[in-house]
Amino acid sequence: MFTLPQEESRAPTTCPGSASTQDLSSSYGDGLEEECSRKPDQKLLELYGVGNPIAMFFSDSSYLSSRGRIIKWFWDSAEEGYRTYHMDEYDEDKNPCGIINLGTSENKLCFDLLSRRLSQSDMLQVEPSLLQYPDWRGHLFLREEVARFLSFYCKSPAPLKPENVVILNGCASLFSALATVLCEVGEAFLIPTPYYGAITQHVYLYGNVRLAYVYLDSKVTGPDSRPFQLTVEKLEMALQGARSEGVKVKGLILINPQNPLGDIYSPGELQEYLEFAKRHKLHVIMDEVYMLSVFEESVGYCSVLSLERLPDPQRTHVMWATSKDFGMSGLRFGTLYTENKDVATAVASLCRYHGLSGLVQYQMAQLLRDRDWINQVYLPENHARLRAAHTYVSEELRALGIPFLKRGAGFFIWVDLRKYLPKSTFEEEMLLWRRFLDNKVLLSFGKAFECKEPGWFRFVFSDKAHRLCLGMQRVRQVLEGKSQVAEDPPSLSDPGAR
Amino acid sequence: MFTLPQEESRAPTTCPGSASTQDLSSSYGDGLEEECSRKPDQKLLELYGVGNPIAMFFSDSSYLSSRGRIIKWFWDSAEEGYRTYHMDEYDEDKNPCGIINLGTSENKLCFDLLSRRLSQSDMLQVEPSLLQYPDWRGHLFLREEVARFLSFYCKSPAPLKPENVVILNGCASLFSALATVLCEVGEAFLIPTPYYGAITQHVYLYGNVRLAYVYLDSKVTGPDSRPFQLTVEKLEMALQGARSEGVKVKGLILINPQNPLGDIYSPGELQEYLEFAKRHKLHVIMDEVYMLSVFEESVGYCSVLSLERLPDPQRTHVMWATSKDFGMSGLRFGTLYTENKDVATAVASLCRYHGLSGLVQYQMAQLLRDRDWINQVYLPENHARLRAAHTYVSEELRALGIPFLKRGAGFFIWVDLRKYLPKSTFEEEMLLWRRFLDNKVLLSFGKAFECKEPGWFRFVFSDKAHRLCLGMQRVRQVLEGKSQVAEDPPSLSDPGAR
Repeated sequence: MFTLPQEESRAPTTCPGSASTQDLSSSYGDGLEEECSRKPDQKLLELYGVGNPIAMFFSDSSYLSSRGRIIKWFWDSAEEGYRTYHMDEYDEDKNPCGIINLGTSENKLCFDLLSRRLSQSDMLQVEPSLLQYPDWRGHLFLREEVARFLSFYCKSPAPLKPENVVILNGCASLFSALATVLCEVGEAFLIPTPYYGAITQHVYLYGNVRLAYVYLDSKVTGPDSRPFQLTVEKLEMALQGARSEGVKVKGLILINPQNPLGDIYSPGELQEYLEFAKRHKLHVIMDEVYMLSVFEESVGYCSVLSLERLPDPQRTHVMWATSKDFGMSGLRFGTLYTENKDVATAVASLCRYHGLSGLVQYQMAQLLRDRDWINQVYLPENHARLRAAHTYVSEELRALGIPFLKRGAGFFIWVDLRKYLPKSTFEEEMLLWRRFLDNKVLLSFGKAFECKEPGWFRFVFSDKAHRLCLGMQRVRQVLEGKSQVAEDPPSLSDPGAR
Repeated sequence: MFTLPQEESRAPTTCPGSASTQDLSSSYGDGLEEECSRKPDQKLLELYGVGNPIAMFFSDSSYLSSRGRIIKWFWDSAEEGYRTYHMDEYDEDKNPCGIINLGTSENKLCFDLLSRRLSQSDMLQVEPSLLQYPDWRGHLFLREEVARFLSFYCKSPAPLKPENVVILNGCASLFSALATVLCEVGEAFLIPTPYYGAITQHVYLYGNVRLAYVYLDSKVTGPDSRPFQLTVEKLEMALQGARSEGVKVKGLILINPQNPLGDIYSPGELQEYLEFAKRHKLHVIMDEVYMLSVFEESVGYCSVLSLERLPDPQRTHVMWATSKDFGMSGLRFGTLYTENKDVATAVASLCRYHGLSGLVQYQMAQLLRDRDWINQVYLPENHARLRAAHTYVSEELRALGIPFLKRGAGFFIWVDLRKYLPKSTFEEEMLLWRRFLDNKVLLSFGKAFECKEPGWFRFVFSDKAHRLCLGMQRVRQVLEGKSQVAEDPPSLSDPGAR
């Protein structure tokens, strides 16, 4: 049941998404019960939801606290799917019949470039200062480098400042820290769905902060509109809905380029969302971890840091990391940029729990300052490879007659498989996902992103051609009813047997 | 007021220690108020206390949550003292009149050995698997190496198992994670005082867990007793005392070798403490981060992992790190060893917020497996240098007629300066500490370790001879009333002027 389609998130597939209003009455002994006892307006229910990560929680360890059991549950539920994949991982030579992973959003196209660069002798510097207790905000030399880097690549109108930079071991940590210092227990952030599902845990596990969903759908309502379009009206409705349930909303999370849609917000849209937040005194957390993974040149990307004037700079907090744009999710480097000194300081105070090695800080500074390599080697080659991989998967989908969102950013394509569901339910979506997995290809289903419409899937394409080719072959087999599994129904109805 | 004597802890000097019973009635809106409203038995008050980290909290940021303001306060209060030191840091060439730091417990004696080892070519390995999302418990190759390492150096009766190992970015994170998964909000761990003060924050900032003090004192009560001796009787009294105030105690934290005392628990003592914990179903967190820093060969150290039979293995959790024993506090590597699968899994689930780079994991595995270097180069040389530095500071103290605890482990000496206080108060202790700082030597005062008796100081000796020599000269000047400050009383009474 709780099998996980996304390695990077290890998010459970159903629990955090089971946001129905009756779930909200469950108690966690932290004041949520009382806050959430009001009855919601039924008309609004189509338009928003408030996540309740503990709705389906179950654990029996007598050694753990109640929150410890919830934390463990998140691991266990994720592990179940993860194990399936890792027990039978595809390997060209050793396990050619193993599972192809088109579910994890990692860029596997540039390890050759990265290995070469990171292995150069300038990367191994061992100075006493790097081995001693650091400034928990990050070493100054690195914060200076990050400020210069973001100034350049975000096209900021004025140079960004090192004192506004805080360094952490990844954006998961940054979500955790921001949730804790901005919200009380049980308060919430607005987030448009579908969204990168792991954020649910990041704000909840330590911070006990929830997400209030702004449900988007695929309907196109006018000439200027696109599927899953975020509008200020929808933001207003969701905010009102959450409030009607007694949930206090403290901020808005925006992912740009968006995961899983691949959408990019125009400067005008961005401005509107920021004005909305300002009107309601909401913090805005801008997740820009894919900002350098815009591979179509025709697509103009606009970082929030490029805006001439932020509507509410004291409540605008930007996150970036090397995990996606430099294909190094295992390196654990993320950064916050905020003009709000109080927020920067409070996050820094938590950085003793999110610190990264001085040696890695040195390496990251070396990497970020090497503009020749970034501009002339890494980015052009990375973009060319992403573009080629994207083109290949797009053409395969077209050949199959499958609709999808054609975008030019990120590592994934948001694919519409609704016509393959006998009924429009999440149970059918899950069954289809299992058919893919049984046919040895791992994808991510829409429910994991809190998508409102059953039948959407995220296809990650940032992988080597031979793996993509094999993965798409297996997808085709399932959709054409030719997979091994389709001929063997019993294994479908018995997930426990896998 | 909130100046910090310990860089490594950045603990505020007064706030977490101000554990008087009236503080307990302050509210944090998380249920503590109700829990703590019972009146304590006055007779017990000498023997225990329950820390209340928010007793002196103050902040005015409207952007932060109430917990965010507390978190920021911890940073600000620590920064005040930290800034004083860092604005005027001693440098042999550039700032010979700067402040000598005998306050931070770091080993600065072996950077030459470490730099040489960590700069070898085997340390820079960049494989795709190290750049991808890791197993959040730590890469298997590293957990295997840690299990072998601990089996050998802790002298475990049977080989330790990689599946019981969880890797994190330091023991601060481990305290945070364990507090969260073992305790509910407002529950407590017992801890004998004096203790490494930063633990207060580690269990509180994310976890909202408090410490219940077992107050030890310097009185020697019999032939088998030593100053600040921990006994089961004292543990029982403190547990009873905390319970009488309605505080639920979930575990016991033991530091061995002890910081700041330098004490080592005998196998018999260890067994008694563990039996006490078992009787009360308390978890035991054994902090053994100084286990390889026992520099006197005559001192027999016994890791809890060396015991033939743990009284309650499911509730015994061991932490170790490279920060102290390998003098690399900036490297951010720590590890948990526990046989309890639920605890290991719950901590692992939080590891996405405490992860360390795959490249560093590789380096640590290389380091820990290099037994030739560890046994033939690093440990003998490190111990010889620690011994020499310890001898030097001990002799200086003896020449000054100052009592201190002579121990053979750790980086510090616990020094009795009570006779230099005109009155036996913590205000006088603070004034003396300021006189040292004004005379450009940074020490740690007893209150920061929640010591019950005013007048004790921690002297860190693990530094180069010329710095120790200058530091001790400056100490002597203050104690003999010959410091610049002693001749200039106004600056004493006006700390704001510094």
